[in-house]
Amino acid sequence: MDHRCAGDAAGQGGAVTGALIGAIEAGGTKFVLALSDADGTLIERGRIATRSGHETLAEARDWFAAAAERHGSIGAFGIASFGPIGINPDSADYGVYLSTVKPGWHRTSLAEALAPFAAPMAVQSDVNGAALAETLHGAGRGHQVVAYTTVGTGIGSGVVNRGAIMGGISHYETGHIHVPQDPAIDPFAGVCTYHGNCCEGLASGPAIMARWGHDLSGASEQQIALIAGYLAHLSVALISLHRPDRLIFGGGVMQAAGVLDSLRQQTRAIVAGYLPEWDADLSERIVAPELGHDAGIIGAIELGRCKLTGG
Amino acid sequence: MDHRCAGDAAGQGGAVTGALIGAIEAGGTKFVLALSDADGTLIERGRIATRSGHETLAEARDWFAAAAERHGSIGAFGIASFGPIGINPDSADYGVYLSTVKPGWHRTSLAEALAPFAAPMAVQSDVNGAALAETLHGAGRGHQVVAYTTVGTGIGSGVVNRGAIMGGISHYETGHIHVPQDPAIDPFAGVCTYHGNCCEGLASGPAIMARWGHDLSGASEQQIALIAGYLAHLSVALISLHRPDRLIFGGGVMQAAGVLDSLRQQTRAIVAGYLPEWDADLSERIVAPELGHDAGIIGAIELGRCKLTGG
Repeated sequence: MDHRCAGDAAGQGGAVTGALIGAIEAGGTKFVLALSDADGTLIERGRIATRSGHETLAEARDWFAAAAERHGSIGAFGIASFGPIGINPDSADYGVYLSTVKPGWHRTSLAEALAPFAAPMAVQSDVNGAALAETLHGAGRGHQVVAYTTVGTGIGSGVVNRGAIMGGISHYETGHIHVPQDPAIDPFAGVCTYHGNCCEGLASGPAIMARWGHDLSGASEQQIALIAGYLAHLSVALISLHRPDRLIFGGGVMQAAGVLDSLRQQTRAIVAGYLPEWDADLSERIVAPELGHDAGIIGAIELGRCKLTGG
Repeated sequence: MDHRCAGDAAGQGGAVTGALIGAIEAGGTKFVLALSDADGTLIERGRIATRSGHETLAEARDWFAAAAERHGSIGAFGIASFGPIGINPDSADYGVYLSTVKPGWHRTSLAEALAPFAAPMAVQSDVNGAALAETLHGAGRGHQVVAYTTVGTGIGSGVVNRGAIMGGISHYETGHIHVPQDPAIDPFAGVCTYHGNCCEGLASGPAIMARWGHDLSGASEQQIALIAGYLAHLSVALISLHRPDRLIFGGGVMQAAGVLDSLRQQTRAIVAGYLPEWDADLSERIVAPELGHDAGIIGAIELGRCKLTGG
């Protein structure tokens, strides 16, 4: 695992009264910045445009320096970021952007940028941050094992198991598994640069646009079912390889009417009674997220809270 | 998670000097029983035939009672068992056989059978037990995240992440994901009772026998490649959903010459450079198990050791 924090740390917050949390939701077009107190209450929130790594992180650092000037010193940072970024705390690449794709970001280091604050830092992928936020404060509340998946420009999942964000030597890449495709029904070659017709290559937003020239809001019932069917195989892979008690599916593709319902029905049909908890109406098992655009920054705050209390 | 024990507990063993471990590898045809000391050294080993749940567990109980009479009291039990069995310690079904399939086992309880010893008990699936044993003492030694898969009568995997056996609300069911199948090359409908052509339905020992009337020892290169290809998709699912740094593939199907090599090559081909650690010769990444038939009982002993030290 990369992150363990047993749920809501409000109780422990009292032990570090006065210390604040700096939180970053790092996205490809904008960075959302936040300062919260130790129990997660928002004190100040900002937003900067994403430029080069060096420029963007310098601006973020200045924002936190000014905010700390006004409100008090920062005891920990939590960051939920686009990737690829090192999220293994034992690795030299922790908090380092690894992409050679995004111009001006390769080898940019969050740890270096935030070093002046001398505060510990928890770094996670954006999807893992959202998964944590949804588990603690959103659609996963009260569940033991939550798998959160976003289906948009890409497809990715985060799994939170009894308060801990799951990960191996790096974050999961669930969108890149291959799922059954019947070329007689869907001859589409897929859009994934690496894999063509992996799940992301067949069912992400860009795959839908490339295949039909429109998104799912203008899709037929058959088109909805086709995309939901690919996602149902991902859903079954998550079920089989993580045994969650709740699946959350969000992102742009899931917004279209009928996708979530079709995903539920097809997931149940594929499991085919093998696992009793998935052999029922799945309205309460497979659900939409609840936090919307706030999931990322809420997740980042929670990552920081956990770091503040030694997690 | 269902089990957390940070690797070798020999250091802590000293704290409970004198307490012994009772270990059971519970299989469909035989139960292997063992008594070890706190550092895992075998003291005595036995074997009984698997009959009804009540008879078998009574005989196991008597064996341990006699062994304890000779060697000293049992401080903890570790059990690696066939399933389905409850492995969630928070559930009322912990250590209870859930199968209605195996005659005379439904609702048989290990906890009830071993109650006379008043010792804590760690129960895991047989695959998870073997995964733990291979990680600590076999082909996974020195690796952070090990995914162990057995391909035989069925297909199942256990994942050990930094010393902890991973699990959600129950153990994983990796054999039951669906993998791409080209009916022009392999029109076989699959043998899985529930799913037909899930991975287990296509690539398990019975699937191979049903399709060709012989096992892989008499197979052509094309047949080997077909089966290894299905397993490569499972391998990619494990890689994508658990990010292990080592995969172990064992079981009868993996014994045939060429299967492991083909699995390595096809796994690399499917990942297609997306994850750098899998874009290399995979001889050291995907390996055979090392412990052979002893993996189950060694895993059971380790489960008991962990329980003895409070894990």
